[in-house]
Parts: sequence; structure tokens; C-alpha cells
Amino acid sequence: MSVAQFLVALIAIFLAAKLFGELAERLGQPAVLGELIGGIVVGASGLGVVDAHDPTIHLLSELGVLLLLFLIGLETDLQKLMAVGGSAVSVAIVGVALPFVGGIAFGQLLGLPTLVAVFLGASLTATSVGITARVLSDLGHLQDDESQVVLGAAVVDDVIGLVILTILSTVAGGGSLSALGIAKTVLVAFGFVLAAIVIGSWLAPSLIRLIERLDVARGLFFGAILFAFALAALAVQIGSAPIIGAFAAGLVLARTNKREQIEREVHDLAHFFIPIFFVVVGAAVDLRSLNPLESEPRRYLLIGLGLTAIGVVAKVLAGFAALRRGLKRLRIGVAMVPRGEVGLIFAQIGLTAGLLNAGLYSAVALMVMLTTFLTPILLRRMLPKGRKTELHGVSDYVVDAPE
Amino acid sequence: MSVAQFLVALIAIFLAAKLFGELAERLGQPAVLGELIGGIVVGASGLGVVDAHDPTIHLLSELGVLLLLFLIGLETDLQKLMAVGGSAVSVAIVGVALPFVGGIAFGQLLGLPTLVAVFLGASLTATSVGITARVLSDLGHLQDDESQVVLGAAVVDDVIGLVILTILSTVAGGGSLSALGIAKTVLVAFGFVLAAIVIGSWLAPSLIRLIERLDVARGLFFGAILFAFALAALAVQIGSAPIIGAFAAGLVLARTNKREQIEREVHDLAHFFIPIFFVVVGAAVDLRSLNPLESEPRRYLLIGLGLTAIGVVAKVLAGFAALRRGLKRLRIGVAMVPRGEVGLIFAQIGLTAGLLNAGLYSAVALMVMLTTFLTPILLRRMLPKGRKTELHGVSDYVVDAPE
Repeated sequence: MSVAQFLVALIAIFLAAKLFGELAERLGQPAVLGELIGGIVVGASGLGVVDAHDPTIHLLSELGVLLLLFLIGLETDLQKLMAVGGSAVSVAIVGVALPFVGGIAFGQLLGLPTLVAVFLGASLTATSVGITARVLSDLGHLQDDESQVVLGAAVVDDVIGLVILTILSTVAGGGSLSALGIAKTVLVAFGFVLAAIVIGSWLAPSLIRLIERLDVARGLFFGAILFAFALAALAVQIGSAPIIGAFAAGLVLARTNKREQIEREVHDLAHFFIPIFFVVVGAAVDLRSLNPLESEPRRYLLIGLGLTAIGVVAKVLAGFAALRRGLKRLRIGVAMVPRGEVGLIFAQIGLTAGLLNAGLYSAVALMVMLTTFLTPILLRRMLPKGRKTELHGVSDYVVDAPE
Repeated sequence: MSVAQFLVALIAIFLAAKLFGELAERLGQPAVLGELIGGIVVGASGLGVVDAHDPTIHLLSELGVLLLLFLIGLETDLQKLMAVGGSAVSVAIVGVALPFVGGIAFGQLLGLPTLVAVFLGASLTATSVGITARVLSDLGHLQDDESQVVLGAAVVDDVIGLVILTILSTVAGGGSLSALGIAKTVLVAFGFVLAAIVIGSWLAPSLIRLIERLDVARGLFFGAILFAFALAALAVQIGSAPIIGAFAAGLVLARTNKREQIEREVHDLAHFFIPIFFVVVGAAVDLRSLNPLESEPRRYLLIGLGLTAIGVVAKVLAGFAALRRGLKRLRIGVAMVPRGEVGLIFAQIGLTAGLLNAGLYSAVALMVMLTTFLTPILLRRMLPKGRKTELHGVSDYVVDAPE
């Protein structure tokens, strides 16, 4: 990509994000819905100015979701998250098991081979924590108890999803599985989050004191960002996802006395990168592969709609697995509905391994798309008008007035 | 590049920029010198963590120099720049002619073919406006009359450099030149800057009023950035350089009533991207190709030192072409010394066309490097300690205390 093409892509991304985001808000919808639709307009199905598969655009969008999860982490109270931990874990487990089983059954009903059905099931498991968190924050409800359950469950979900991913990649690659291998994968995945929080919480105050003593220009800004990048890179190294590392970094720094200052300092940078992620998610959608007027695409369109139905019903049911009393379980279930990049990664691996054909891949993509687009619309109807927060993080999206 | 590699590269870039930038300042040198040295440490000649030729890293560094020139434009008073316009143009013309002729003569002295000598001469012409402006701003002298001459001359220089580049690319590609073609190239190059400023100044206030009426969240931030990106992309489209468009965008917005607010809003984003550019310039340096202990590299090392001497002397002499009375001409000349990416682009085209061999390419790279490293050190000795400015743009680099 040349510099000029890069600039044109960035211009298209920000114009789409701002115009459609603003339009969505004026229609009473969360801005993120507008950004996703804006992405469709400038992406593969529309103008074709933004190529979601370009390496640079992809990396910048990854930086966006990473900074989003870092901000979400910064706004999350670990104590509060732990208090709903039991509910979060049970919602996560049921929310993985139900759609997994449902997807496998659906695949077998269609007469697909078992391994293909397993891939379809797996692609239904992981909640997109990025999209869920952004919707809750857009609506001003990130601090609700239900949102804390959703956030915790989505993270656990993502980790379970990564475990399944590791296992299926091994199987798809022709490797063999041992119970020990699976146990190790599970331990590493959850161990990383725990270790990051424990060691991080122990290190963070000293790091902040060091930065203050060094007295470097904009030290806290760069210190915080480097901490998030480092934990994200470490998460990948260990077989987890970068967003998990960034979220852990945010959780850790939220417990220091610099939390609000860090939020303020990282704010502008994050709000440059975050819209890139959501526009790129929209830009990746290729509507042509699901043209209902042609017979082959129509078949996969129907499979996609079936997967969507299973995905929505299974996650909404999972919401009722929340243990704690007084929680609005339907809200939790609906908030768990959006599938994101993890679902697509599953489908991608299945495609590469020759287990899924292009049609099934598009069906999974349709499911990811519909669950993502449905959630903001449904949650908007279920939640009262959000309160404006004084924080400088993601919640800023709900503020209508220009700063 | 995977997400993990990308994160590691970013971590290395910011660590190098902050550590060496701070070290340079403590030693009384401008931070940019530290960032360049930090780049060598993490780049091709050092740890090899930052690959300056990776497409994504390259595009991010381009965004950095673009935002730097946008900020410089925002801090530049067009009236003041016009007032020293005559001096700027004469410094620029002499500053292109002298090193060009000197380089050709040097090449012929070495017995090189004429076209090769012309390429060497051309690579000596263009001043790096990015490095020059950053050094002056680091030292707190961006608003001096001499600095305004340098800024104006460096921009004119860059435009002339692009004209020469267009002509030489045609010749190297085996095309033929007409006087009409050359005249057209010159007109387009200078016409763009003029048109951008005239049309931009006429459009900007309406644009700002439109943004205010639309009342979009962070509208001014995205409006200003999109304006800079759009002019930069337009500049490329028209055969000029993106930094010229970004500088023009800054000049135009500096004349609106929102100048200070724009500076404040763009500040954080710019200071994320700007260090990437300078670290990447350092990271691109490959010291091994100039090993004085081996005979072939030694020959090119000597040629590089010769080119450096011609480049320094010619630009310092050009400073004395400043017309206006009372200007410190030696300062102007020294500030014009750094060559940057344009010099390397010349060398790159010569290399691709088979006119320069790898040794001569390295010699040009050495000249670029030495002129870049010499300038901050020399200027630091010639300029009194700079004043701290209240602006939120590039001048922030001189502020020692953390914000």
C-alpha cells in the first residue's frame, strides 16, 4: 500500500465512523452500530476503499481493539468483577457449551461430516468482548452489575474459545490430542490472566514510582501504553489473545492511584484507533457471497440464518445461568450474543484446513455479522437511557456535546 | 508481520525514543538526536527488532512526519513566513544549486559516468524539513526569524527536490525530457502549495463552522486530521510529497480562530506517531556496509565522507544567500544541512535503475546520516538556551517537566 492509498483508507475510515456513528446516535442507537454500517459502506461490499485484509489496516485495527480493552480494563473494578465472578464463570461455561452442542447438532442435521460440524459449533462459542463492551459503554451502562457479569463472562469465554481453537488447530493440522495436552492448554490460558493480574498488581506501583522518579516527558502516557502492549504481546507469546493481555493491563493499572490520569492521557490516542477496529469489522463483510437470488449462495444464506438463530438462543439461555440473585438475566444473555473475530478465526482455520468451503465460511461470517448488529439494537431497547459519566475513557462515546 | 511482532516493534520504538531522547536532553542535546541514536540501537545495525523497511512500520513513520509537519504548519505564521519569503527562496535556490554542482564535480573527479555523478549531486540537494524543524523546535527556536527562513527554504527545497526527482526518474527510466515537460512539473509542484494555501484559507473557516454546526463528538479533532490527511493525499496525487500537503494544511488552519484548540487536540496523537518517524530513520541505518576494516566498504566510506563535506559546506554557504539584513546567516546555513528521506529516495531510484551500486548507495546513506546527526549538535552550540513556549504543539518537546 502506498502512502497515498493509506491516507485515503484512513480518511474513508474516519469519515465513515464519524458520519454513520453520529447518524446512529441521532436515531437513538449506539455509535458502534453506525461505525459497523459505515464499514460496510466503505469496505468490500460497498465502495471498496478500505481493504480489511491489508496487513497495515489489520494491525491498526488490532491496536484499536487492544486499546479499547485496555480502557475497559481501566474502568473495571477488579473487586466488583470478582464479586460477580461465580455468575460470570457459569454464564461463560453454559454460553460456550450450549452453542457448541447446538452447532454440532445443526451440522449433523445438514448431513455434514462430524469434524465440519464441530468447527461450526466452535465458531458459535466465543463472545466478542470488544463489541459487547463497546455497546454497553456507548449506552452508558458499563458499570451495571449485569455488565460486570457480561464482561467477566466474555473474557472467560474468550479464553475458553482460545483453548478450543488450540485443540481444533491441532486436530485440523492432523496432530493428535492427549488429555495432558488439553489440560496444559487450559492451565496456560487461565494461568496467564491470573499471573498477569497478580504479578502486575505487585509490579505496577513500583513501575509508576520509577516513571515518576525518572521524570521523563509524558512518562505516564508512554509507561501505560508500553505496559499494555507488553502484556498483550506476552499473552500472544503464551498462546492467548492480545486483547486478554491488554484487558489485564487495564485491570492492574485501575488499582493504582494514577488510574484517572492514565485514562485521560490515553484517551485521545485510543479514540483515534478504536473506530478503525469497528469500521474494519464492517469492511470485512462481503454481502455478495450471500446473494439470495442465486441458488448456491441462498443455501449458505439459510445455513447462516440457522447458525444465527442457534447462536442467539443459546447465548440468551446462558444468561439465565447467572447465579447471583437480583440480576436481570435476559440482559446478560442478550449482551453475550455478539460473536466477533474469534468466530471468524475459527472459520478461517477451517477454511484453510479444507474442512469448510467458501459457502460455509460465508455462513459463519453472516452469523458473526448478524449477532454483532442485532445486539446494539436489542440492548438499546432493553436498557434505560444511560447516565453521562465523568470518566475520560470509553464512556466518552455517550457524551453528545463536543469537548 | 504478526500482531505480536508489531507490538514488540512498537515497544522497542517507544523505549528507544524515550530512553535515548531523555538521555540526549540530560546531556544538553535535542531529544531528536537521542531518538535517532535509539533507532540505530534497535534497528538494522543493532538489535534488529525494528525493521525500517516493513510496510506497516514505514507507513506509521510517514504518518509521524506528516503530523509533525502539520503541527509545524500550525505554529507557523504565514505572514511572518512571507515576510522572509525572498530570503527563503534565494537560500533554497543556492542551497540546491551548490551541492548539485558540487556533487556532479565530485562524481566526475572519481571517474564516474555523468549520469551517476548527476544522481550523486541530486541526492545532495534536498534539506530534510522534518529533521530541521524538529531540531529548531527541540531547542525552542522555531519562532526566530532565521528559523522562518530555514522553514520556508526547506519547503521550497523539498519542492525543487521533487522536481529534480521527477526529471531524473524519467531519465533513469529511459524516457525523454522536453522543456515543456520540465516547466509543467515545476508549475504543478509550486502551484499545488499556492493553490492549497489560497483555496484552503478560503475553505477552512466554512469547514470549521460546518463542524461546529454538526456538533459531532470530537469533530474538530477529526476534522483537522482529515483536512491534513486529505491535503497530504492530494499532494501525492499531484506529484508532490505528503509532508508538503500536511504543512500547507497546518498553515491554513493556523489562520483560523481554532488554531490553539486544534494544536491541543492533535497533540497527543502527534506525539505518539512523531517518535516513530525519527526512530525509524535511525533504524534504517546499516553501519555494517561502511566497515572501515574492509577495503571495498572503506572506499565507499571515504566517498560518503566526501559527499558529507560537500553537502555541509554547500548548504552553509547557501545560508549566506539570505537577502534580509540582520539575519544570522551562519545559523541559517547550518540549519539547512540535514538531508533526509528525499536524499535516500534519490539514491534508491538510482540503485533500482542500476546507476548506483550498493556501495554508492551506502555512501549516500552515510551522508544523509552524518548531516542529520551533525545538525542538532552544531545548532545546539550556536543557539542560546531556548525559551519554554506555552503552545501545545511540537514545542512541547523542550518542556522538561512532565505534564
